[in-house]
Amino acid sequence: MPVTRWGDPAHAAPLPDGVRDLVGLVFSLGDTPAKADVAVPAPALAADLLDGLRAVVGADNVVLDDTARRQRTRGKSTPDLLRQRSGDLSDAPDVVVRPGDHDDVQAVLDYAAEHRIAVVPFGGGTSVTGGLIADRDGFAGVLSLDLGRMRSLLSLDPISATATLGPGLRGPEAEALLGEHGLMLGHLPQSFEFATIGGFAATRSSGQASAGYGRFDSMVVGLRAATPKGEVRLGGTSPSNACGPDLRELFLGSEGAFGVITEVTVRVRPVPEVKQYEGWQWPSFEAGADAMRTLAQGDLLPTVLRLSDENETAINLARPDAIGGEGAGGCLMIVGYEGTPSATAAKKAAVTEVLTGLGGTPLGAEPGTAWAAGRFNAPYLRDSLLDVGVLVETLETVTFWSNRERLYGAVKSALEGALGEGTMVLCHVSHVYATGCSLYFTVASAGGEQPLERWLVAKKAANDAIVASGASITHHHAVGTDHRDWLAPEIGDLGVDVLRAVKRELDPTGILNPGVLIP
Amino acid sequence: MPVTRWGDPAHAAPLPDGVRDLVGLVFSLGDTPAKADVAVPAPALAADLLDGLRAVVGADNVVLDDTARRQRTRGKSTPDLLRQRSGDLSDAPDVVVRPGDHDDVQAVLDYAAEHRIAVVPFGGGTSVTGGLIADRDGFAGVLSLDLGRMRSLLSLDPISATATLGPGLRGPEAEALLGEHGLMLGHLPQSFEFATIGGFAATRSSGQASAGYGRFDSMVVGLRAATPKGEVRLGGTSPSNACGPDLRELFLGSEGAFGVITEVTVRVRPVPEVKQYEGWQWPSFEAGADAMRTLAQGDLLPTVLRLSDENETAINLARPDAIGGEGAGGCLMIVGYEGTPSATAAKKAAVTEVLTGLGGTPLGAEPGTAWAAGRFNAPYLRDSLLDVGVLVETLETVTFWSNRERLYGAVKSALEGALGEGTMVLCHVSHVYATGCSLYFTVASAGGEQPLERWLVAKKAANDAIVASGASITHHHAVGTDHRDWLAPEIGDLGVDVLRAVKRELDPTGILNPGVLIP
Repeated sequence: MPVTRWGDPAHAAPLPDGVRDLVGLVFSLGDTPAKADVAVPAPALAADLLDGLRAVVGADNVVLDDTARRQRTRGKSTPDLLRQRSGDLSDAPDVVVRPGDHDDVQAVLDYAAEHRIAVVPFGGGTSVTGGLIADRDGFAGVLSLDLGRMRSLLSLDPISATATLGPGLRGPEAEALLGEHGLMLGHLPQSFEFATIGGFAATRSSGQASAGYGRFDSMVVGLRAATPKGEVRLGGTSPSNACGPDLRELFLGSEGAFGVITEVTVRVRPVPEVKQYEGWQWPSFEAGADAMRTLAQGDLLPTVLRLSDENETAINLARPDAIGGEGAGGCLMIVGYEGTPSATAAKKAAVTEVLTGLGGTPLGAEPGTAWAAGRFNAPYLRDSLLDVGVLVETLETVTFWSNRERLYGAVKSALEGALGEGTMVLCHVSHVYATGCSLYFTVASAGGEQPLERWLVAKKAANDAIVASGASITHHHAVGTDHRDWLAPEIGDLGVDVLRAVKRELDPTGILNPGVLIP
Repeated sequence: MPVTRWGDPAHAAPLPDGVRDLVGLVFSLGDTPAKADVAVPAPALAADLLDGLRAVVGADNVVLDDTARRQRTRGKSTPDLLRQRSGDLSDAPDVVVRPGDHDDVQAVLDYAAEHRIAVVPFGGGTSVTGGLIADRDGFAGVLSLDLGRMRSLLSLDPISATATLGPGLRGPEAEALLGEHGLMLGHLPQSFEFATIGGFAATRSSGQASAGYGRFDSMVVGLRAATPKGEVRLGGTSPSNACGPDLRELFLGSEGAFGVITEVTVRVRPVPEVKQYEGWQWPSFEAGADAMRTLAQGDLLPTVLRLSDENETAINLARPDAIGGEGAGGCLMIVGYEGTPSATAAKKAAVTEVLTGLGGTPLGAEPGTAWAAGRFNAPYLRDSLLDVGVLVETLETVTFWSNRERLYGAVKSALEGALGEGTMVLCHVSHVYATGCSLYFTVASAGGEQPLERWLVAKKAANDAIVASGASITHHHAVGTDHRDWLAPEIGDLGVDVLRAVKRELDPTGILNPGVLIP
């Protein structure tokens, strides 16, 4: 049994030469072979409950085998991978249940509530914040609710430019179904190839084209969910309204704690005729970030807008085929334009005028094309680095523009302080708004004897630095179990009480993803 | 004591000649003199409670006089005005309390919760959906919490383009304070001159420049509220994040039922250098609406975009100075551009190309300028029409593009059916989205002997038609008491249960605006 790795094994690749050189240069590597061949704990769920589940969804859709349960154990954070490599499969679900539609989900929840079985909704399994690690205390067992059979384009309204999608559709599957109608969603997070529509909604995902197409939550027009108290349908009447609080925004980001999202209605767009990505060079991270701010506040955002800091630019992380090779120097910005030829040309002309005026140097199409070609590859690279004993992980945050520099320094210092000499901290601005931007950090350090413990100390230091800086604990990775202790500082004790009140109302027996999101 | 009228008495004007002719032509007018000189009921709140409130906010800020209480009785819907004209002041608050800051509000709520005094937050008093009509059953009395002293620009972050505003600031006051820094908000609902920042947030207001600047809720970055359970601060870390459900969206649209909004942080923009408004003529409402949809779905919206149907165009409601005069024929669209000279020119060129290509006829600047000059005047006109016995009121809804025509027909039929021959129903599209648009109806009919009863029947018919059409009961007027019975059909019984659970958590004794919003 191989260790749990990212994505499609056929895409895994040995470390690029540049990275291998870099790794040898920077880290003193330990020898940390993975203990891969560890048995999954025996299912704890009683036989009569398994029979009961079989009666609800059919015997074929109640899966107990080791491989299925192993693959649904935790997510894909570095701690998740390290725990699995060290042989710890203690969080394996007892059973995988595969509902076929909304009514199936409702029936499973009704059964689980009656028999106190914890339910962990499972889409692509790509959580990097412990969103799949349920607390099994007080429950008869843990059920992984795999939404992989719910993979249809349920309806399409081309006049209103909306589509209703099944929650189990992976990114490329959703785009393929929409593409048959000349339409697309345009949501391209790094996990795009494996993560699902339901997961995007439940975690407030944000994609690499968010400058042009918005965060996933902003694409959502409506949703349907099953809860232990019954069905919820929201947003079915209109794009926006003044009909009280917007309850869609309670389910977006609810991470399976309030209900299971069974349908998502999204805004769709015509597939762009033109896609152009290009590079720009900036003398400093600050100069590049100020240019991004100017574009965002001038309502002049291109489709893609990203900016690497000096460190990330130097090792060329934006070009996975050439990491460690000759970078552009300074700070590299990727700017992408998608749309009709005329709209793209007009936007590019206006953006180019602003960026040139602010001191940017155009680098042409090559850096943009290279970035686009490797845009989903970083997690494969992480596996290869873990293989050779390098501790590597990412984390992200978001703040207002006036706080960007302070936050950047604080998180960098916290990580370097916690991990010690020889630690590399790279950063890019991955998402921008009129009022602020996200910061996405990549950290690499020698793994040492206890890489997991090393990382947990560093992650806590980073989280504390983020909160102390007044920023958000997460821009798009979500809360899960990893950020749960930092929720109250952000939304207040009373905010947490409100979430608990909503959970009590919808999930009175607390079976939904217990321990995730709500402290 | 004059009857309650809209706005500033100095701005009230006799009916324009065109309207007078129209009124004489269309309606057989009854004689309905207003019973203006009716006494306000004596305050019901016990003397010891009044003393207690004086101890909390100071004697000067506990106001009992008739004029203050009369002015805070209900809002400004036609039913509100008709009830007042008929001498019904039964909903007058017992006392007006004027807190000076967040801590004052908190202290008043604590006192009110302890002594079971109903609290009605009061901003501009411009609600048209009964948002100021609290149910006094089971309470010691009703307190109008007038936020008019909380009128400061509390902080400004020009780098992040955010400003924190007091809830009692009226539209023009907020713009004047921001204007001192070269900035603006750009939120211009018809109630702009009198409605307040806190009210905009609490009701999810939407302004006449929403195509360019967005709905008010989309401008809100953060807010602070006082609740009977203490303070809530939301959105202080970042523009957007994945830190669980977005609780800002629970307070936006909460209409005083969850807490009192005491600070609102909004995105601000530079004051535009250029403002250009122009008219376009369309052969039909459908052709004009399709053009709006094309712009919205192409992410090519101007700052202002409105479209009158044939009836509204014919009586020229878009030009209050020339109502009933010679209109453009067909359907009149108002298109406005605001911004820098270069951005405005580029947007105008692109929009003009699309509109021309779709069959629109440019009418030049004159209709646009005329619209802008009279943009806030319709409520004054309503008072003058009520004076001569015409029943006139507005209502609004929103739906997806594919449902626009059905909804339009259904609401029109419902109103004409309920009010009978001689009824005029006018409509315009006032706000557009990629996936749908709002419809704003103006209704005029003979008042008859019982204008209030006539209207309530018609309004119920319109509401039922809206729900039956699958549209939203309100795009930007909010729920209040008038739409409360149509909330459950829109968000579901379980959605209502969630709102009740949140209210129980934040307002366990139910003192906050009882009867408003939540059925």
